[in-house]
Amino acid sequence: MVRLKATISYDGTGFAGYQVQPGERTVQLEIEKVLTTMQKGTQVKITASGRTDARVHATGQVIHFDTALEIPPEKFQKALNVQLPRDIRVLHMEQVKEDFHARYDVSGKRYRYIWDCSTVQSPFRRHYTVETGGVKPNVEAMREAAQAIVGTHDFSCFCAANTSVVDKVRTVETLELVWQGEELHMTISGNGFLYNMVRIIAGTLWEVGVGRREASSLEKTIASMDRAQAGKTAPAHGLYLEQVFYQDL
Amino acid sequence: MVRLKATISYDGTGFAGYQVQPGERTVQLEIEKVLTTMQKGTQVKITASGRTDARVHATGQVIHFDTALEIPPEKFQKALNVQLPRDIRVLHMEQVKEDFHARYDVSGKRYRYIWDCSTVQSPFRRHYTVETGGVKPNVEAMREAAQAIVGTHDFSCFCAANTSVVDKVRTVETLELVWQGEELHMTISGNGFLYNMVRIIAGTLWEVGVGRREASSLEKTIASMDRAQAGKTAPAHGLYLEQVFYQDL
Repeated sequence: MVRLKATISYDGTGFAGYQVQPGERTVQLEIEKVLTTMQKGTQVKITASGRTDARVHATGQVIHFDTALEIPPEKFQKALNVQLPRDIRVLHMEQVKEDFHARYDVSGKRYRYIWDCSTVQSPFRRHYTVETGGVKPNVEAMREAAQAIVGTHDFSCFCAANTSVVDKVRTVETLELVWQGEELHMTISGNGFLYNMVRIIAGTLWEVGVGRREASSLEKTIASMDRAQAGKTAPAHGLYLEQVFYQDL
Repeated sequence: MVRLKATISYDGTGFAGYQVQPGERTVQLEIEKVLTTMQKGTQVKITASGRTDARVHATGQVIHFDTALEIPPEKFQKALNVQLPRDIRVLHMEQVKEDFHARYDVSGKRYRYIWDCSTVQSPFRRHYTVETGGVKPNVEAMREAAQAIVGTHDFSCFCAANTSVVDKVRTVETLELVWQGEELHMTISGNGFLYNMVRIIAGTLWEVGVGRREASSLEKTIASMDRAQAGKTAPAHGLYLEQVFYQDL
């Protein structure tokens, strides 16, 4: 058996999220189906760096799995891409040590969140950006608010209520807001993210940007450790899992 | 009654083309449904600059229609966009003279065709570009071949066989091939295009680009006036109707 690591991209539009759920089309299910066919029926289970929710996209999700097939990684990648549905692509594949673990070994992740602030949203961007109805936020205020988020904090206020995680201390390394034409892109990287954390940060910063919340209030929001003090969870289809970092690689 | 001219964009993926066809979801049908609702059931018929086929996109299709509704064009545009499905957007709307005609008054059009030459196609581009399986064509050869197409010619060789048009003389004003990252974009403008003409030109130039056809052979191909002498019709989902030109506007 060898362990393979694959970097994958998927358009989240047509999936009920990453993880297998009975009766739903998910990314994990589609990949495991193809791998099981390639292994002539022998069940293959894949492990990802983490889940993504329905309609969330990935440009750099990472998975690992074990296989007895003696196919070089580049050929394995091509064979997978031929058989996978077109809304999932394997971007890169390599053999890794047999103790590599796509989830346990994660040292950090980077996400992107995109708002489309054009007056009329392009129909080609409707599944890939969140339209703001032409509203252009005050990005300077959002950047000021973001300062309070960067660093090591208990991020309970940015964590969906229905979670079983106990330790909610995480480090946000970078949080940047950049215009790309009429699209506002937020990129955020850190050593780990709580459930819905990026979408709640996006929703909270948006409220700052449109003047519904003071930029200077973020410190208090974080100190409250109260989800109710933060903003709304921003819509799923503006979010991209962009890169997963591993210490040794 | 006033006549309104609207510039619209649509993602062709979910449509059986522009024109109404029984039992099919088409762009014309969706717009006429909304307009008829806005007019409290009074049937509205719209006229476009021309049809587009199933899966062909538009970033600048033009339509006209007459209405008794006394709504300023900007408000009419907003009302339409609220009710239209998200894969059709009205980009601009204005009142025009009552004898303006979206099809008869066309003085020219510009189309775009996009090939994605990356090794692994992004899942986000699968409906919007034609993937080449990583093949990168010889664009210099394609540009040389394009020289023979620019100008006024009988373009019978680039016209789908099943057409009733008699006069097949058209003028191609510009034909450009430009890399945008790993995507090759062809833009073509002219005073008029025959059925499937852009897609057949794209297919023929592609064959030149990959060495299956000589760049110097295009003159003979055009002179043959024989569809069988030209290349394959390139896939629909790489094509965009980008702009429609009118003399007086």
